[in-house]
Amino acid sequence: MTTSSANDPYYSRQSAQWEAAPRIESTGSDAPGPLTTDEVWKYAQDGFLFIPQLFSLDDVAEMLAEGERLTKDWPDGRPGIIREPDANIVRSIFRLHHHSEKFQQVFSDPRLVTRAQQLLGSDVYIHQSRINYKPAMNGREFFWHSDFETWHVEDGMPRMRALSVSIFLTESHEFNGPLMVIPGSHETYIRCAGKTPENHYEQSLRKQEYGVPTQDALQQLLVGREIVAPKGTAGAVVFFDCNLMHGSSGNLSPDPRVNLFTVYNSVDNGLQTPFCDRPPRPEYLAERTVRAVTCSPN
Amino acid sequence: MTTSSANDPYYSRQSAQWEAAPRIESTGSDAPGPLTTDEVWKYAQDGFLFIPQLFSLDDVAEMLAEGERLTKDWPDGRPGIIREPDANIVRSIFRLHHHSEKFQQVFSDPRLVTRAQQLLGSDVYIHQSRINYKPAMNGREFFWHSDFETWHVEDGMPRMRALSVSIFLTESHEFNGPLMVIPGSHETYIRCAGKTPENHYEQSLRKQEYGVPTQDALQQLLVGREIVAPKGTAGAVVFFDCNLMHGSSGNLSPDPRVNLFTVYNSVDNGLQTPFCDRPPRPEYLAERTVRAVTCSPN
Repeated sequence: MTTSSANDPYYSRQSAQWEAAPRIESTGSDAPGPLTTDEVWKYAQDGFLFIPQLFSLDDVAEMLAEGERLTKDWPDGRPGIIREPDANIVRSIFRLHHHSEKFQQVFSDPRLVTRAQQLLGSDVYIHQSRINYKPAMNGREFFWHSDFETWHVEDGMPRMRALSVSIFLTESHEFNGPLMVIPGSHETYIRCAGKTPENHYEQSLRKQEYGVPTQDALQQLLVGREIVAPKGTAGAVVFFDCNLMHGSSGNLSPDPRVNLFTVYNSVDNGLQTPFCDRPPRPEYLAERTVRAVTCSPN
Repeated sequence: MTTSSANDPYYSRQSAQWEAAPRIESTGSDAPGPLTTDEVWKYAQDGFLFIPQLFSLDDVAEMLAEGERLTKDWPDGRPGIIREPDANIVRSIFRLHHHSEKFQQVFSDPRLVTRAQQLLGSDVYIHQSRINYKPAMNGREFFWHSDFETWHVEDGMPRMRALSVSIFLTESHEFNGPLMVIPGSHETYIRCAGKTPENHYEQSLRKQEYGVPTQDALQQLLVGREIVAPKGTAGAVVFFDCNLMHGSSGNLSPDPRVNLFTVYNSVDNGLQTPFCDRPPRPEYLAERTVRAVTCSPN
């Protein structure tokens, strides 16, 4: 083992039994920004913040069009596009901030960046970005997970100083597999059982089996709490902490569910050697260069 | 082809393209019974009726215990128990009215029988019965389908004079894969595309691929309507028409979802030769003997 669990407060996948550990970093900050004190407080309590109509339907239409363009123009052999196992349907496209000027601009939008800076209390850079398509009638589920567990173990992200932004590009409703979260779960770190298999990401992007909680871990997180699924029209945005336990059901409805994601990490929290004895995941999943995001003039 | 589509108003799986046809039979009746005129009217309009707390929690506990007993005592080689493909978890047990005195008694309970008789306007018999377990964390989805389409094509049920009763044996909530229905869809018969494969039921009990609607068929059923998921505590009951389009998502929650089902068919609507050129499905899926149910004294 290359990593000593004694030096790593967030070690995971090192024994046959899961374990709950407290979070070290505080959530939220008192840095200035567009969010009210109440909103920052709510984010700190729940681990997420839902903002309806942060983007207009015109903004959303442009993002959807850019996703289609990227799918169409994606060069053969370039990594970062994930297709459904059984069909030639695109499920995700990664590293949008690298491959698309349009998405670079979206991720530099002050509506996102100033809020991310305020919640993380520092300048930020993009750790990962992607568009997720959950197609109508057969969109697949994402099992429960904490992003941070994977980012820490497999990418080497040292601390819980990152957050995800999910922009709804279609309505997200009860029946098209909306994001489900456990409010408050970001305060507890679940050390998962098992080991990290070789090239785990190739499998885990389709169906994650390692780094996921057991039923009793989930039940412990749910003591005194309830699962919540933020729902809303296209243009709504969810900011959520890197350690928030979340997942989403399959989509049997005739409406696709499309979300644009970006992960802002604090510039003080750049990646180190992964906290497992595997090489780091490819850069389309985890940027290894810290470049602070500058707000677009807009 | 043994069946002429000219003589069968509900032919299906006979061409490469789906088609919508109107229902012939009316839904509901003006027979006397415990349901109010409003309730019968609502059933006729929506194709289903939700009744909270029809059974007590004590009743429910007895039913759950009987399900466990059946699982434990199920003889090797006896058909009618369905396990999850990837695990040794029981998903369904069929023909409970045949194998269990306790369930025979439940299905003879006047709370169910008199309502079924009232809605179907005749005496009734049991066409099928089962308990469905949708286990926590990995309960599988049931894709959209009309039961009648299968019962007609594969079992030879002539007309839409049957209904299902689903008794909630656990709470059914937003996150444990509740029954989803399209209100009003029972008025339209979707002739499905494709053919019936040999021994289709062996596959379709796990994942149905024939006799299911396409996205555009579902969208047509949803014009002016919305998907509804009746939710409630253990002991609640849903009565729903045999042609109501329904399905259910997977269960990622830490709460199992368990339902007890029975199908009452009118004694005037006994099974004929299947409306396809395959032999009928086994009797654990479709009773071929009409025995009118007599209410238990209770």
